[in-house]
Amino acid sequence: MSNLPARASRTLGEIAVRFGLELVGDPDLRVDHVAGLESAGQGAVSFLANSRFRRYLKSTRATAVVVSPADAVGTPAAALIHANPYAAYARIATLLYPAAVEPAGVHPSAVIAPGASIDPSATIGPLCVVEEEVQIGAGARIGPGCIIQRGAVIGAHTRLVAHVTVRGPVRIGQRCILHPGSVIGADGFGFAPDRPAWVKVPQLGGVVLGDDVDIGCNTTIDRGAIGDTEIGDGVKLDNQIQIGHNVKVGEHTIMAACTGISGSTVIGKRCILGGMIGMAGHIQIGDDVMITGQTSVTGSLDGPGAYSATMPAMPARRWRRLVARFHRLEPDRRASNETQDRSDDE
Amino acid sequence: MSNLPARASRTLGEIAVRFGLELVGDPDLRVDHVAGLESAGQGAVSFLANSRFRRYLKSTRATAVVVSPADAVGTPAAALIHANPYAAYARIATLLYPAAVEPAGVHPSAVIAPGASIDPSATIGPLCVVEEEVQIGAGARIGPGCIIQRGAVIGAHTRLVAHVTVRGPVRIGQRCILHPGSVIGADGFGFAPDRPAWVKVPQLGGVVLGDDVDIGCNTTIDRGAIGDTEIGDGVKLDNQIQIGHNVKVGEHTIMAACTGISGSTVIGKRCILGGMIGMAGHIQIGDDVMITGQTSVTGSLDGPGAYSATMPAMPARRWRRLVARFHRLEPDRRASNETQDRSDDE
Amino acid sequence: MSNLPARASRTLGEIAVRFGLELVGDPDLRVDHVAGLESAGQGAVSFLANSRFRRYLKSTRATAVVVSPADAVGTPAAALIHANPYAAYARIATLLYPAAVEPAGVHPSAVIAPGASIDPSATIGPLCVVEEEVQIGAGARIGPGCIIQRGAVIGAHTRLVAHVTVRGPVRIGQRCILHPGSVIGADGFGFAPDRPAWVKVPQLGGVVLGDDVDIGCNTTIDRGAIGDTEIGDGVKLDNQIQIGHNVKVGEHTIMAACTGISGSTVIGKRCILGGMIGMAGHIQIGDDVMITGQTSVTGSLDGPGAYSATMPAMPARRWRRLVARFHRLEPDRRASNETQDRSDDE
Repeated sequence: MSNLPARASRTLGEIAVRFGLELVGDPDLRVDHVAGLESAGQGAVSFLANSRFRRYLKSTRATAVVVSPADAVGTPAAALIHANPYAAYARIATLLYPAAVEPAGVHPSAVIAPGASIDPSATIGPLCVVEEEVQIGAGARIGPGCIIQRGAVIGAHTRLVAHVTVRGPVRIGQRCILHPGSVIGADGFGFAPDRPAWVKVPQLGGVVLGDDVDIGCNTTIDRGAIGDTEIGDGVKLDNQIQIGHNVKVGEHTIMAACTGISGSTVIGKRCILGGMIGMAGHIQIGDDVMITGQTSVTGSLDGPGAYSATMPAMPARRWRRLVARFHRLEPDRRASNETQDRSDDE
Repeated sequence: MSNLPARASRTLGEIAVRFGLELVGDPDLRVDHVAGLESAGQGAVSFLANSRFRRYLKSTRATAVVVSPADAVGTPAAALIHANPYAAYARIATLLYPAAVEPAGVHPSAVIAPGASIDPSATIGPLCVVEEEVQIGAGARIGPGCIIQRGAVIGAHTRLVAHVTVRGPVRIGQRCILHPGSVIGADGFGFAPDRPAWVKVPQLGGVVLGDDVDIGCNTTIDRGAIGDTEIGDGVKLDNQIQIGHNVKVGEHTIMAACTGISGSTVIGKRCILGGMIGMAGHIQIGDDVMITGQTSVTGSLDGPGAYSATMPAMPARRWRRLVARFHRLEPDRRASNETQDRSDDE
Repeated sequence: MSNLPARASRTLGEIAVRFGLELVGDPDLRVDHVAGLESAGQGAVSFLANSRFRRYLKSTRATAVVVSPADAVGTPAAALIHANPYAAYARIATLLYPAAVEPAGVHPSAVIAPGASIDPSATIGPLCVVEEEVQIGAGARIGPGCIIQRGAVIGAHTRLVAHVTVRGPVRIGQRCILHPGSVIGADGFGFAPDRPAWVKVPQLGGVVLGDDVDIGCNTTIDRGAIGDTEIGDGVKLDNQIQIGHNVKVGEHTIMAACTGISGSTVIGKRCILGGMIGMAGHIQIGDDVMITGQTSVTGSLDGPGAYSATMPAMPARRWRRLVARFHRLEPDRRASNETQDRSDDE
């Protein structure tokens, strides 16, 4: 599938002017697709954002490369120079691969409640359900099979790709992207113990997503118990993330896949969370905190700062010996002659 | 989204009598919504279930607060007193926010097989699929976009919120709630090694969910290989939980989000499992076991008791030094002068 | 739900010949269902693949058991003998429980784009969406509620069970099974930092799945950023797995549930990955690598070999003492008199 479709070509001069890049090379050269440094050929624009790939720069066959000032020499390609070459590349690629234009309107197979309010410039795909009191903004694109339940508000130019479920009361900002299988606004996990059973605590709050929020596939964001779950502007959540009820996530925080945040935790702005992190409930994470993958966060963390409890894999035999040594740091008091940990609870 | 809709108001006297609460205050006062202690105002009923919020009790503007006997004094609000204030609050909130009544019947856009049996009092939402030999009980509410496959049985008053997939043979009890994206009864993960390939082992069993079971968003419960996967009465599963084939979960056990249970494991009654726990297959967990989040459970655990292997996050620099110290507990025998763990497997 | 439906019966002689088994017993005996050794009765074929169940062999009431040569004596049942009894059992069970035959054709409620190419022998279930430029091969079975987006190619005899989302450009091989809620080909998680915001990097590659690939429920496989994400022939992925953009997974590798692989990582052939493993991006895993559950893989691993960082659960009291001992291996330099890790970042 690797051949990217060629799109309308652009001159390097036009690209440089549009995005504020310095150009070393012929401004009339044209590019019409993107490619990696190694595989690039005629008409390709490539980029160098990670020093580990610098060795490919001098042999690339790309027509142009987006590079930092330090990497602008020593390449046979034309150089499009920017202090942040990855972001500049992202903008160029977006220009070369414009999103397909979908005609506005509601597909005849969609089920739309009479009281729903849909902007005439919005697109509602096949087999969607839009319930009462829903508002869908200008230019919003609701892909096939999405379900938008009573009281949800979808901002202008927001896109629900496919098979997205939004329960009300949920308010989603502008220019968000919600990927397939994501679920926004389902009940939080609230149960009061009433031994031996559990009594469901009604989940009465909503979810508020800011502008420019991306939500990955099968990610779930629960509604608040009382008051809202809040996701700030510019937050980016990868696939299969779980956000519990009444969590607050600050602006421009980013989380890798499979991370889970327990209820009522407050995460600061501009945090960077690795994948498969588990975070306890009712804690505070400061601004500009970085946490490595698979770390357990059991208490509040000040920002800025980097935190970790990631234990790296090693050969299994050595690991088993290490665990045995570790256990000897604190011998089992009740069963010190046994190796069975289960008998230890004192 | 925070303004909870006002509903029909109730007097404190009515509430006290209905739920067996002691009332200190005017029984004719009326409440019509719930709120947190801090934000509550006129007409609100609030509650104190966690001592960390006790400081808000003396300044709350709530009309009434649900409290334990020990907290009944020192609040300006009327006190609704119960030994289990959180459960009492849950019941009051359920009274104040009754579920919307949905008319019985089948939405014309749903695709219903001729041989499906649907109680006349059940509701089938738009764009559902109900296959042959399915039985749907009295008062069941099947939300939009649900797929119920051949041979599934849905108990009375059970609710599938939206986008739920139930494959047969699955039997779901009464008063269950299945949240969006959950999948019940898909094939278990059974493959016989036949080097180098894998032969699929037919998954021929079913899934049985008891009564009053809650299943979170995007949670998956696989059908048994031979015999059933069984989830006991009153079990509560949060979002994105994975239950392997032939697992048994005892009554009233509760699991937080992202936990995964491998095949054929048996979990006792009234267990409390934290989030993102991984549990090996073919093990037994006793009754009344509590396990902290992100713990690996590799062997059977007796109950009752609390178990853990949660390693808390710390500043990353200190963590890296600690890991280096830890590795020195058992030096790499084959490559003791190297730092590369990969060369160690003896 | 436990009574497996009886199907057409087969003689032991027929089974032995068809699958190359040695038979000790009457070739005219008939079996018509499978059962576990303990619960089996008249007409059942059972198997012994795990020595822990050997004790049930001598008292089973099964008509026949599939066993290894070493276990062929000491059972009252007829013995169907094979060096790999589990694989032989899998093939026998597949014979006894043939998949239901679904009539070819497109359900009238499906929404099919005029430019989609669907083989006449394929089945498209109710409420599916098939967009332009999609190709669906011979004998493919697309279950209810699936969405196949522009440019996807579905190979012959591949099955999408229900509620599957396939975005283009994706090419899926022959005889694959995609379980409910899986999402193939959604955008990878690519954002360029542009402080404080993030710029979306267009995700322009595709996904290629080989032949005989199984994808579990709610598993997500992202499209490549440039170039494809590639899943080799015979790969088996359990539920709730996350595969990032541009990952390559070698032939016949198998992964248990909830594992996550970060972008651009390359995994070898015939690897066996436990559940809830987290793997960093841009690393290489060799062929024939085995990794235990919940391990963090932060660097490349040579194959063949077994790797681990699984820390087993123990009683919580002892665990807390062990963690305290562990922390003392490397005292907090900046705050050695404090127990608060948060103050440590130097």
